[in-house]
Amino acid sequence: MTTTQLIQQIQTKKSFLCIGLDVDLEKIPPHLLASEDPIFEFNKAIIDATHDLCVSYKPNTAFYEAYGVKGWMALQRTIDYLNQNYPEQFTIADAKRGDIGNTSGRYAKAFFEDMAFDSVTVAPYMGKDSVEPFLEFEGKHTILLALTSNEGAFDFQTLTCDNQELYKKVIATSKGWKNSQQLMYVVGATKAEYLAEIRQIIPDSFLLVPGVGAQGGSLEEVWHYGKNDSVGLLVNSSRGIIYAASGLDFAEKAREEALKLQQEMAKLLA
Amino acid sequence: MTTTQLIQQIQTKKSFLCIGLDVDLEKIPPHLLASEDPIFEFNKAIIDATHDLCVSYKPNTAFYEAYGVKGWMALQRTIDYLNQNYPEQFTIADAKRGDIGNTSGRYAKAFFEDMAFDSVTVAPYMGKDSVEPFLEFEGKHTILLALTSNEGAFDFQTLTCDNQELYKKVIATSKGWKNSQQLMYVVGATKAEYLAEIRQIIPDSFLLVPGVGAQGGSLEEVWHYGKNDSVGLLVNSSRGIIYAASGLDFAEKAREEALKLQQEMAKLLA
Repeated sequence: MTTTQLIQQIQTKKSFLCIGLDVDLEKIPPHLLASEDPIFEFNKAIIDATHDLCVSYKPNTAFYEAYGVKGWMALQRTIDYLNQNYPEQFTIADAKRGDIGNTSGRYAKAFFEDMAFDSVTVAPYMGKDSVEPFLEFEGKHTILLALTSNEGAFDFQTLTCDNQELYKKVIATSKGWKNSQQLMYVVGATKAEYLAEIRQIIPDSFLLVPGVGAQGGSLEEVWHYGKNDSVGLLVNSSRGIIYAASGLDFAEKAREEALKLQQEMAKLLA
Repeated sequence: MTTTQLIQQIQTKKSFLCIGLDVDLEKIPPHLLASEDPIFEFNKAIIDATHDLCVSYKPNTAFYEAYGVKGWMALQRTIDYLNQNYPEQFTIADAKRGDIGNTSGRYAKAFFEDMAFDSVTVAPYMGKDSVEPFLEFEGKHTILLALTSNEGAFDFQTLTCDNQELYKKVIATSKGWKNSQQLMYVVGATKAEYLAEIRQIIPDSFLLVPGVGAQGGSLEEVWHYGKNDSVGLLVNSSRGIIYAASGLDFAEKAREEALKLQQEMAKLLA
């Protein structure tokens, strides 16, 4: 999917919502556990109930790997279901991968070719040759961790390195990498005020913003500091939506939570 | 496996060799491709031919994920085979994971509980709460990326942050994390001279050293700058051993390459 198509989706749906599909079998409605593939059944129900309210789905691979081969199969079924039924959705494999060149290339193949995700999140610590193999895939996007939503972000990301905080250095340096126009960046909603300075370095790039909802970030602040002329934001909510209820009406309740965020977004977009 | 047990293995086998199981179907002997699970068959043959010469095996997860569900199954079969037949081997899931706390906990569960690896490599960018969930697992080791073997290591890892290079800051900071005695560190052999300064910060920790062989690092230099009183080194070789030959004799040739390294190590240990 191109960035232009993503922007069109945002305008059409009046939403820049991304829904995180972080499936924990201990949290999903108990009645689903009897099915053959509870993870996929849960995702399918959530997707069917919310697809018109969001522009993106983001499964975090950790939740699938935690269930071994079965989890991996459920992830494959989920992305296949999305690509077949809702190809207008921008799909994100939240994998936070990164390795030396030839090895990063294997991860890129896994997520872009075999699973056909539109994008994958990547960690910057290993530098240029760990990220460029992802950028080689045309029409795909690489979402680089810049400033994450957790407390540990202050351990290294905000250290001053050569007169610039590390996360800014990461963003600025990455602009010089091959095919850097395919980069997007993760910036946590819990650090919304940082977005203004980030926008000075990358005015045009899309930002994936986790941390609204359960982690305490504010949508309005993210909008205020982070938006650009073509919106430039994907705001993620996971637990707040998908675990809104655990009864037979879980998908309906998830829709209600997604609708609240979408309506808030529509107001901001107006 | 405890560190004491690992040190005993090193002394018994006169080897601190780790063999990287980075299986690429385009590089393995063509005759294996006819088997039902060529990745596992390749690994099994390499392991059976080399287990007395090394103390550790390290599959890099990228190579398995690149083959989707089949790859994941082959990884599971490989670790099961190792745990059942060669429990004295220190097993490393080279996964370079890291995410916010509860999510890192899912990765830790996947690699430590379900797959029963002895250790997993973890990226430091997201800080303390992204690493500590791995350190919660007793008897398991978390191998933190410090200074990697690739060119991109110079993009961020060697930046001066608060009067100290970032990789040193990462190492020094991590010493304050809960259960930090279960930490080991990745330091590339291609940057062997850096090992002396690293040893000043962590004299006692084990270092996993990739980059000897195909990537150009020198075993002697790694030993010179990196060893401590209990050796404290695991030196990895992947391609140089496992792809030594592609005929019917591939395992035998792999053994020959492993033997060369083991004999060099025995001399250094003497």
